[in-house]
Amino acid sequence: MSSEFGKKIKISIFGESHGEAIGVVINNLPSGEKIDLLKLDEFMKRRQGGNNPYSTPRKETDKIRFLSGIANGYTTGAPLCGIIENNNTRSGDYNRDLPRPGHADYTAYAKYGSFTDHRGGGHFSGRLTAPLCIAGGILKQIMERRGINVISHIYSIGKIFDTPFDMINPDINGVDTDFPVLNKDIKEKMQQEIINAKNEKDSVGGIIECAITGLKAGVGEPIFDGIENKIAGLVFGIGAVKGIEFGIGFDASQMRGSLVNDPFIIENGQIKTATNNHGGILGGISSGMPVIFRTAFKPTPSIGKLQKTVSLSKMQEADLEIIGRHDPCIVPRALPCIESAGLIAIADFIL
Amino acid sequence: MSSEFGKKIKISIFGESHGEAIGVVINNLPSGEKIDLLKLDEFMKRRQGGNNPYSTPRKETDKIRFLSGIANGYTTGAPLCGIIENNNTRSGDYNRDLPRPGHADYTAYAKYGSFTDHRGGGHFSGRLTAPLCIAGGILKQIMERRGINVISHIYSIGKIFDTPFDMINPDINGVDTDFPVLNKDIKEKMQQEIINAKNEKDSVGGIIECAITGLKAGVGEPIFDGIENKIAGLVFGIGAVKGIEFGIGFDASQMRGSLVNDPFIIENGQIKTATNNHGGILGGISSGMPVIFRTAFKPTPSIGKLQKTVSLSKMQEADLEIIGRHDPCIVPRALPCIESAGLIAIADFIL
Amino acid sequence: MSSEFGKKIKISIFGESHGEAIGVVINNLPSGEKIDLLKLDEFMKRRQGGNNPYSTPRKETDKIRFLSGIANGYTTGAPLCGIIENNNTRSGDYNRDLPRPGHADYTAYAKYGSFTDHRGGGHFSGRLTAPLCIAGGILKQIMERRGINVISHIYSIGKIFDTPFDMINPDINGVDTDFPVLNKDIKEKMQQEIINAKNEKDSVGGIIECAITGLKAGVGEPIFDGIENKIAGLVFGIGAVKGIEFGIGFDASQMRGSLVNDPFIIENGQIKTATNNHGGILGGISSGMPVIFRTAFKPTPSIGKLQKTVSLSKMQEADLEIIGRHDPCIVPRALPCIESAGLIAIADFIL
Amino acid sequence: MSSEFGKKIKISIFGESHGEAIGVVINNLPSGEKIDLLKLDEFMKRRQGGNNPYSTPRKETDKIRFLSGIANGYTTGAPLCGIIENNNTRSGDYNRDLPRPGHADYTAYAKYGSFTDHRGGGHFSGRLTAPLCIAGGILKQIMERRGINVISHIYSIGKIFDTPFDMINPDINGVDTDFPVLNKDIKEKMQQEIINAKNEKDSVGGIIECAITGLKAGVGEPIFDGIENKIAGLVFGIGAVKGIEFGIGFDASQMRGSLVNDPFIIENGQIKTATNNHGGILGGISSGMPVIFRTAFKPTPSIGKLQKTVSLSKMQEADLEIIGRHDPCIVPRALPCIESAGLIAIADFIL
Repeated sequence: MSSEFGKKIKISIFGESHGEAIGVVINNLPSGEKIDLLKLDEFMKRRQGGNNPYSTPRKETDKIRFLSGIANGYTTGAPLCGIIENNNTRSGDYNRDLPRPGHADYTAYAKYGSFTDHRGGGHFSGRLTAPLCIAGGILKQIMERRGINVISHIYSIGKIFDTPFDMINPDINGVDTDFPVLNKDIKEKMQQEIINAKNEKDSVGGIIECAITGLKAGVGEPIFDGIENKIAGLVFGIGAVKGIEFGIGFDASQMRGSLVNDPFIIENGQIKTATNNHGGILGGISSGMPVIFRTAFKPTPSIGKLQKTVSLSKMQEADLEIIGRHDPCIVPRALPCIESAGLIAIADFIL
Repeated sequence: MSSEFGKKIKISIFGESHGEAIGVVINNLPSGEKIDLLKLDEFMKRRQGGNNPYSTPRKETDKIRFLSGIANGYTTGAPLCGIIENNNTRSGDYNRDLPRPGHADYTAYAKYGSFTDHRGGGHFSGRLTAPLCIAGGILKQIMERRGINVISHIYSIGKIFDTPFDMINPDINGVDTDFPVLNKDIKEKMQQEIINAKNEKDSVGGIIECAITGLKAGVGEPIFDGIENKIAGLVFGIGAVKGIEFGIGFDASQMRGSLVNDPFIIENGQIKTATNNHGGILGGISSGMPVIFRTAFKPTPSIGKLQKTVSLSKMQEADLEIIGRHDPCIVPRALPCIESAGLIAIADFIL
Repeated sequence: MSSEFGKKIKISIFGESHGEAIGVVINNLPSGEKIDLLKLDEFMKRRQGGNNPYSTPRKETDKIRFLSGIANGYTTGAPLCGIIENNNTRSGDYNRDLPRPGHADYTAYAKYGSFTDHRGGGHFSGRLTAPLCIAGGILKQIMERRGINVISHIYSIGKIFDTPFDMINPDINGVDTDFPVLNKDIKEKMQQEIINAKNEKDSVGGIIECAITGLKAGVGEPIFDGIENKIAGLVFGIGAVKGIEFGIGFDASQMRGSLVNDPFIIENGQIKTATNNHGGILGGISSGMPVIFRTAFKPTPSIGKLQKTVSLSKMQEADLEIIGRHDPCIVPRALPCIESAGLIAIADFIL
Repeated sequence: MSSEFGKKIKISIFGESHGEAIGVVINNLPSGEKIDLLKLDEFMKRRQGGNNPYSTPRKETDKIRFLSGIANGYTTGAPLCGIIENNNTRSGDYNRDLPRPGHADYTAYAKYGSFTDHRGGGHFSGRLTAPLCIAGGILKQIMERRGINVISHIYSIGKIFDTPFDMINPDINGVDTDFPVLNKDIKEKMQQEIINAKNEKDSVGGIIECAITGLKAGVGEPIFDGIENKIAGLVFGIGAVKGIEFGIGFDASQMRGSLVNDPFIIENGQIKTATNNHGGILGGISSGMPVIFRTAFKPTPSIGKLQKTVSLSKMQEADLEIIGRHDPCIVPRALPCIESAGLIAIADFIL
């Protein structure tokens, strides 16, 4: 089981949902980077539930304890380890014998046998995105200092869609941090859609759109180490992600080349493209235009409705009713996770 | 520039489109694997153009010369190196000063300066998928011996769509190798769509759907080393790919959890799922159901129509007319590339 | 700063000597391995000082707290994180301005600037061998279950030499765990040599000889991934190591091939070598004979004697008297560290 | 079988002694580096035999053919592949059934079975150091442009020792390229020692001392990615190496700390050490003093004398007389290989 990522900035994530602690080790951070712990905490809070009717009532405090790599508010250059001690867990909610449909319970069992720590999904829990956000939140501050911003908004909840980013000039200040959408009129409808799903003891999916601005042309590597490969490699580390597309993405497959190709232009003495269908990446390497990508999330598989599963011990079919406290929609809490993926990917190229 | 992939099976791709040769080094292949060179050649032929009205008239023979790692028809266990010597190139077709829209000409220039070998796209050329297919074609034989098949069909050309795979039981014999579609009635329409684009000096995109069968439950690793991460990391190494989705993919974002979750069932004493919306992967690990993924290709950026670009030397806007021999649609030739990505990903887990 | 090792078994070490905690993340341990915590504690104790006149009076308890990867006494298969919370540190002993000769104080300053956590040597402290021993102690139990033993003895202290291992049949029970030597008569002399150095406010070096038994022929990889490369890559991660040799090592450079070459023989129906000058490795791959290597340690650089150094702030030469509690000889405590290196190296090949 | 090395500069070596070709792929070379092919050829020639009475009469021309990564005499930034086509091989010299003592014939057989290409040692042949030298020779030019020089001399042949390098100021011009020794009086004695061994149908070992100058303080990483780890990891990729030591190396184990510790001093406004027992590395990181290391080579195992081995097919003991053309001493030809290891190690840190 290898939960590591990166070549320059190396991330190693550990922990099980209901174990002692979850955490992350980050190797190769530059020394002397100031880390504002309050800002980091704000970033982490966006991932936490419990503050509104449309997410889990399970309150995770996600207080980070740094074991190494930070001293006097600055990175030391040594490997940074940040952990979150676990609390407020109710292991009684989980049943080893009946794997939850849509979860990794069964596949973890197939791989690790009964030794896997299945409580709360163990190492496969969405809770493991918290250490990802520790890394992302730290890198956000380091990247911003270098003029690079990574922002995201809720592109869709179910069939309700927000306005897409302006691909030439995404408004990095146009999104708030609570329930970020570009079209403010759509916000309430999306929230209602989540509440509807919740009331039906069901869940609903959605799409997050993310933009990376401030990246100069020439960042990235060809073939297997392109920006797309790296972002995709991180994003599929976030549970419930089923797809990713860059620039105009799947729509490009239905279009003619003369419409998809972005003409080069000169703007203020710099080479730009007139449109940004390519999403800021050509041949794996940044073009200087904003990097744009969208990530599809399936509905969170933990739902209250009665479901069909099997008993692993009896090898016969069985009913399952999940009683615990679960999100009807993971999308609002996943925004900082997606941004973290973008931040880690870019940091792995330029730090 | 790092054109390497893999942890167990390591692939290192080298070469420039119009250089001496292109090739691949594969590390960690098991010894004693019989390699049928005729079958490998058939696999390579599927990637080559020139045989029909809907692909490039440029004939690439792609004859593989093995420098190491194979003796007497069997792998020796030592690093395998296969190369394709270049010939039939017309470098006069390419202009360094005017980067082609939608190509990596400009980003390669931004990264490597004027030293990059720009002829024919250099290391960024679609031609570099040939070494990928050498690796894929070799692993196809090794994987089939282990009961694992990777097949693909043309899911769409422009707005014309084939029938999707049966996600529970994809018909691995239902697709031919020339222009594989499941719905034979759609074949001619798709080909006509490509010819139309060609006649307009334009190009058209499409989607490839790929299935991996025969994979037992429990293959893959969590978080960053899941099957999705690995396949995505390879697939974005193929030029013109703009998106990837697994199982029902982006559609899941519009659905309720009660419909997306695949109930577990018992079938012939084995645990299966009644549906396969998850596309054979849960938590990065195989469930024993077929792995299904779709990859979106943009229209090939080399088109005959007049386009706008900039002169790098004069830093002013300029017109560009590409005269060379180019594919109006890359999708039919990309099928073995996508299968190779699937084969390499799986081999990296199980060899 | 990258403190990671391994391809299959991945070790990531973090922590600073006087920081919150030091620890290790181990990826890819098999699930279901029983870990006897008392045995692990015994292994850790061998690395700790404070119990005798010839090591540091600084008492490190090195109590391991497992944050993940172990449940109910068995590995879960998820990344294992074990930490040691710091205590009993006296940071006042350390002076940032005067780098200690023979230590990494100055090179860390050159690399990380004043942000490095210099207290107690920070991430460069010998204390960071404790997490190495957590990994080694866990793998020792897993390896022994597979018939592989890694043992070591003190080969020399200063100019006083023990009997070398029988290279064909090293006596794995002939060494005790406290101050292991093969020639019991030499033990007291060695200890006296250490006490002499201590009384002179000085320190003394030595050599550790290590044997790995039970390894079948055919383990290891050629060229850069051989057993020697891997063991050396780990051993130089232990502070104060200045050299390593395998089999007869440097002596081979003075001999004729006819004497160095080990003739193959048949013994009990198995291929062996009559002698083991090659130290169990040919071409990076195990021959089935015991792997034997020796590691040279310089005298610990922390000594009480007055030394010459420079003031980093004034850029002028200065006197330094180190007051703290330090080992006059690191060798006796380094034995489990060397064994850990051997264990991790082998585990990285066969797990 | 993984014959790869490096994190930034990645080297992948392939080929079998008597196969089609041997070669190397180098990833991540900077673009725009001028490569003087005549100088590269001179570097390669130092590794070749056939020019004098003390090395093999087998003439290897080692003419490099570049398949990619170089255009118009400059690196393009794309992966560089250089190969040497094989010729002048006499496979009849080699016998699969009787593994040669001291060679990897038996261990390769144990690992890969009869599929391994055993001719001439296959992938384990000393011939595979030629691709290593391609990488080293290219990096030598790139490093020299950055003020870094890597030089070596023959420190010993058998029991005949040269003067060691001045560790503070090694004379990088004091060594010639043919049979480099510092003490010219010893040259003939060493050559005679080799001829003596040859006349006895035997072989003799030796030690190479290597110095790296021009490295600023602060290069390298702690724990597992130090300069020692990296150099050792490469050096043990060269056949016949049995040991390595840095600075005063094994001698440090017999000394007191007060003598080993190198006092810091100020010289011309820069921090230096008065002595260089540490060999330019503290805590894995360069101190700004020359990096010094010595590598012990066993006598080449191919000797004409009658030896004892076993028949793999009959599993009984047998006599072996090796008839082929072999070096009585590998040390003179190994100098550029050792320098290549030093060059690749340093390049992997600073490019």
